[in-house]
Amino acid sequence: MTKCAVCTASFGEGDYDGLSQHFVGQAEKSDPAHVMWLNKNITKKKCDVQTLSKNLKTHFDFRDEGLKGWMKRRFIERFYREKPHPFVLALQHPSKATLLGYVVEHQHFLRQWVRSCAYVVAKTDRVDVTLYELDNINTEFGGLGPDRPSHYELLLRMGESLGVPREQALRTPPLPDTAWAIRTWNEIGESSHWLETMAAMHPLELIANRNLKQDGATVGYFDPTILTGTEVTEATKNFLREGYEADVQHSEEAMDLIEKYSTGLGRAEDVQATFMKSIDAFDRYLMARLERGKEFESA
Amino acid sequence: MTKCAVCTASFGEGDYDGLSQHFVGQAEKSDPAHVMWLNKNITKKKCDVQTLSKNLKTHFDFRDEGLKGWMKRRFIERFYREKPHPFVLALQHPSKATLLGYVVEHQHFLRQWVRSCAYVVAKTDRVDVTLYELDNINTEFGGLGPDRPSHYELLLRMGESLGVPREQALRTPPLPDTAWAIRTWNEIGESSHWLETMAAMHPLELIANRNLKQDGATVGYFDPTILTGTEVTEATKNFLREGYEADVQHSEEAMDLIEKYSTGLGRAEDVQATFMKSIDAFDRYLMARLERGKEFESA
Repeated sequence: MTKCAVCTASFGEGDYDGLSQHFVGQAEKSDPAHVMWLNKNITKKKCDVQTLSKNLKTHFDFRDEGLKGWMKRRFIERFYREKPHPFVLALQHPSKATLLGYVVEHQHFLRQWVRSCAYVVAKTDRVDVTLYELDNINTEFGGLGPDRPSHYELLLRMGESLGVPREQALRTPPLPDTAWAIRTWNEIGESSHWLETMAAMHPLELIANRNLKQDGATVGYFDPTILTGTEVTEATKNFLREGYEADVQHSEEAMDLIEKYSTGLGRAEDVQATFMKSIDAFDRYLMARLERGKEFESA
Repeated sequence: MTKCAVCTASFGEGDYDGLSQHFVGQAEKSDPAHVMWLNKNITKKKCDVQTLSKNLKTHFDFRDEGLKGWMKRRFIERFYREKPHPFVLALQHPSKATLLGYVVEHQHFLRQWVRSCAYVVAKTDRVDVTLYELDNINTEFGGLGPDRPSHYELLLRMGESLGVPREQALRTPPLPDTAWAIRTWNEIGESSHWLETMAAMHPLELIANRNLKQDGATVGYFDPTILTGTEVTEATKNFLREGYEADVQHSEEAMDLIEKYSTGLGRAEDVQATFMKSIDAFDRYLMARLERGKEFESA
């Protein structure tokens, strides 16, 4: 099935003409979400249904690189090319305010993370997927005993090292954009196939994948020299290092599973649309981290 | 809300008159599932709406013992009183056939177990519930490293020690009664509140709770002398011992959580109906273990 990456409209498999007509129709009504999606992903120029259909088909074509390669390429394009995402730029040598914005919003993200992964476990019938998700949930949220605190715990410790007690972080509700993004991911978990939920979540771990430069990223998630210097607290290093190391394997392994099962189950196009929807949500969520950071600048 | 423990009918909170009318109506139509439920749980005698309403109210009354005490009492009544469940009787000193029936059907149960617990994780907003479920899933299915194999792994090893390779066990589809019970639990996970899913699954771990005799059980899950003698294989002892030890804490802790949140969230009656529905499914599933065991008797 071909699905719209903005709303819930869906079309027959490979029906890019239908998808194109849908986008042109929405653009004629000046629907801001559809227009923005076209501007960001396809073209800023007005074009006819036939041209757009061709462009959409090209956008979603993954024959040469495989589904995993396609997801990586689209992710890098969005967050790591000529204009890296503003949050990534801020994290190169992060201010205390940027890191605290990260802490306060990201605790909400990680709570949703465990819920989304749990939806995959609840719905999948593949044991390798179940075991992958359990390992991921344990690393991110459950922890693996006193010597291996979860990313969630390391995040809260980073906040404490910067002067924000965990109680304060935990009782701060998410900003509206974070809440919106979380709702998007939760709805995907609730109502979509488990492969789409996987595709919505795990490629996001690419954000901290230190190997992304090999695939064309112009910068890393942060300048790795901060892990050895004294410009950030030890707890900050511990948090950033964990992501830097764990997320390489996490995102690669998950995308292998997505690729392995998507084609066999005839779900590649659904997966692609949901992936695109999710990176839009992630983009907005990363902006919310910066917005929250501003509150700490004046403090 | 008061719900029927057999079908999807529901009534206002505490509306046992409504529930009673529903049961009488179903009994007049001779609906076998409703009649059997009344026979098993309330009375084998025909009675009027008013008397039945009073009896139903008494059946679900947990004011004196709390919700946890009520679930324990009902569970013991069903599986452990005058007439213990036939599978429990067979497990006192189990034959090889009984144990192999256990292996083949229970692998399917444990696959559903992890899915049901994952539904709780996906839906709950309480961190203590999330952490409880993660620990439970790891123990039952994920395992905790090479020194702490999961119950699922121990089950398959028991099968191997009795001459059934894991590939054979894994490729054997469930018997119809097991499949039906699994569907019941999966539907609860999919469509019910997370508290009901907890109440559907975790009290079932009472089956192996070695402390149940203190609460009125007439026998244990098996005769504990088999753990020290030579009548069963070492792998069988390892499997049975795990349940014997882990399930005490699992079931107690889960029922504490269910009790803690049910009343506050106004869900005690839903929880009770779903618990009753689940022990019916469990009863039938335990019979399926015996049925499968018979296939191995002639082998």
